[in-house]
Amino acid sequence: MPPACRWGILGTANIARKNWKGIRLSGNGVVAAVASRTPERARQFIAECQSEVPFEQVPTPVGYDELLASTDVDAVYVPLPTGVRKEWVLKAAAAGKHVLCEKPCGADAAEVKAMVDACRAAGVQFMDGVMFMHSARLPLLRKVLDDADAVGELRRVTSQFSFAADAGFLGGNIRVSGALEPLGALGDLGWYNLRFALWVMKFQLPEAVVGRVLNEYATDGRPVPLEFAGELFFPGGVTGSFYCSFRTELQQWAHVSGTKGAVTVEDFVLPYHGAESAFVVQRPHFRVRGTSFQMESHPTRYAAAEASDGREDAQETNMARRFGELVLGGKPDASWPEMALKTQLVLDACLKSARDGGRAVGITG
Amino acid sequence: MPPACRWGILGTANIARKNWKGIRLSGNGVVAAVASRTPERARQFIAECQSEVPFEQVPTPVGYDELLASTDVDAVYVPLPTGVRKEWVLKAAAAGKHVLCEKPCGADAAEVKAMVDACRAAGVQFMDGVMFMHSARLPLLRKVLDDADAVGELRRVTSQFSFAADAGFLGGNIRVSGALEPLGALGDLGWYNLRFALWVMKFQLPEAVVGRVLNEYATDGRPVPLEFAGELFFPGGVTGSFYCSFRTELQQWAHVSGTKGAVTVEDFVLPYHGAESAFVVQRPHFRVRGTSFQMESHPTRYAAAEASDGREDAQETNMARRFGELVLGGKPDASWPEMALKTQLVLDACLKSARDGGRAVGITG
Repeated sequence: MPPACRWGILGTANIARKNWKGIRLSGNGVVAAVASRTPERARQFIAECQSEVPFEQVPTPVGYDELLASTDVDAVYVPLPTGVRKEWVLKAAAAGKHVLCEKPCGADAAEVKAMVDACRAAGVQFMDGVMFMHSARLPLLRKVLDDADAVGELRRVTSQFSFAADAGFLGGNIRVSGALEPLGALGDLGWYNLRFALWVMKFQLPEAVVGRVLNEYATDGRPVPLEFAGELFFPGGVTGSFYCSFRTELQQWAHVSGTKGAVTVEDFVLPYHGAESAFVVQRPHFRVRGTSFQMESHPTRYAAAEASDGREDAQETNMARRFGELVLGGKPDASWPEMALKTQLVLDACLKSARDGGRAVGITG
Repeated sequence: MPPACRWGILGTANIARKNWKGIRLSGNGVVAAVASRTPERARQFIAECQSEVPFEQVPTPVGYDELLASTDVDAVYVPLPTGVRKEWVLKAAAAGKHVLCEKPCGADAAEVKAMVDACRAAGVQFMDGVMFMHSARLPLLRKVLDDADAVGELRRVTSQFSFAADAGFLGGNIRVSGALEPLGALGDLGWYNLRFALWVMKFQLPEAVVGRVLNEYATDGRPVPLEFAGELFFPGGVTGSFYCSFRTELQQWAHVSGTKGAVTVEDFVLPYHGAESAFVVQRPHFRVRGTSFQMESHPTRYAAAEASDGREDAQETNMARRFGELVLGGKPDASWPEMALKTQLVLDACLKSARDGGRAVGITG
């Protein structure tokens, strides 16, 4: 049997169930342990996941510190609330564990820098849990964006990621808790908008950004953004805009426009359920002849043959597999922590702009 | 034979060929005369249009003043450059002619107010040439937006209208002349973005706007916007954003998002060539059960059965027909000049914000 990356899951957030399945399907990983503040909760989480997606050896329910001390664990997946994440990532790095970290990685870039530095010092991999980075759609999209005849020179990247939270969410979900998730919708959703824009721009940072909190909400006296819009000013005159919201029903579109065409992705974060991940290149042609004015649509659809979710080739499985390869390879890839840190830098600047009346804020990497 | 609205076309801009055909197909209008600075040019324009789309009685080539003095003309269509439009609209109103005016209607709202006031005083109809306002798609879209169970409460309206001008356009087209088209892409394209947002909002004005000239260009020492982005802050927390550009290839999408769903229009200005004008209501469903996370797409397509262009039921034909009905009805509809004026007010405020470093600018109707 080939060696496997032995994962510990630090917390029992719902999203960890998806990654449990991703690890199971990755082919190079096993969940060795799950930690919770109460062993009973970890036990229940394990039982429920095992009933659907069993590992041969049932993972062990443990406490947080016990998990980090375990010699049966190589890497930790950290879905803990952002507000307490730094503490545990630093402990994990100190314990020599590789870290796959949910987003937003930290409350601010200083926190993320501390995490990234700690992981580098410990020689362990750091990566944020942005699944779409691991879709086969992305290299396909890159090829199209790099094809000088398809989209041409880039001009604009725009995206929206939103869902309408229900009353229960607004009443009690940690994502509106100022202490646990101080970045609210900007951290939970805007992270994807910003990551996508940075990816399109090959991680060139914007020179400046503008942000606006359109709506905020406080459950514990510390308001968090529920709705946020921002603009990005990249070098060379490329600009971007994004909108994220807990008050607006599900949408996850992105448009990338250039001098020759545009790409539209309807579902850039979570591909629509099915057997492929797609995008469309739009190159309409306006045909004017005498009194005849016709706007012709000339879309070309590109699709990566991969499952949207829950299969061996789905993006979350690819993420677990890629992380496992890095762990097993023993040589951390510095580009992943760098991407996370840049995303947080831009996010911070957007929020700073918003807190400062929407003035343009420069970014210093 | 029923009475017909007798049109005079003031200028021979290319877009007038489309409206010639629209008038011909409207069923209640005829082109009686075409004016140009040189009679030869009007003659040639008439000959070319007649060869494709003939009127029984060949329209007369005339000079501008002659056209306005003609007792054979009830209404004028004004595709003249924005920079000289006010002068001729005021003259037309004084001559008792109804006015269908290309957009942007004026260089600023003061000009448009003067035109609108002159038309009101003369008892003639004023309307801007926004064809999409006359598509059968719009009442269908209104019905969906007003259906509390479809999109829900409005939150966000976003749109892009752009095309990449070629070197010839940038070298000599009047749309980049500061004297003739001082509003550049903001006037030529942004007018549609703003009109659509205002239409969605039932012409409630934004409380404030923000604008940014992303790129500008001067052929005559007076720079015009080539690329512009703006944000709109409506009462009740509804927000909008728009982007228009002469530097970015053809796109004309609009998204309207609410608490329950969203509407996507791919081609909100000029419907893609075909037999219908469509839009899609997006109501994705994120189904989470245990370790299974599925993002389901549940789009519903709505289409108005009408030609995109060049037929009796196309939006430009509907515009000519509706204007003809107003002329023949003898009772001007005050809502059309009001819509044009509001569009220009919002546009002015966006430009003012842009010229003032992107600060929020309030709108006073």
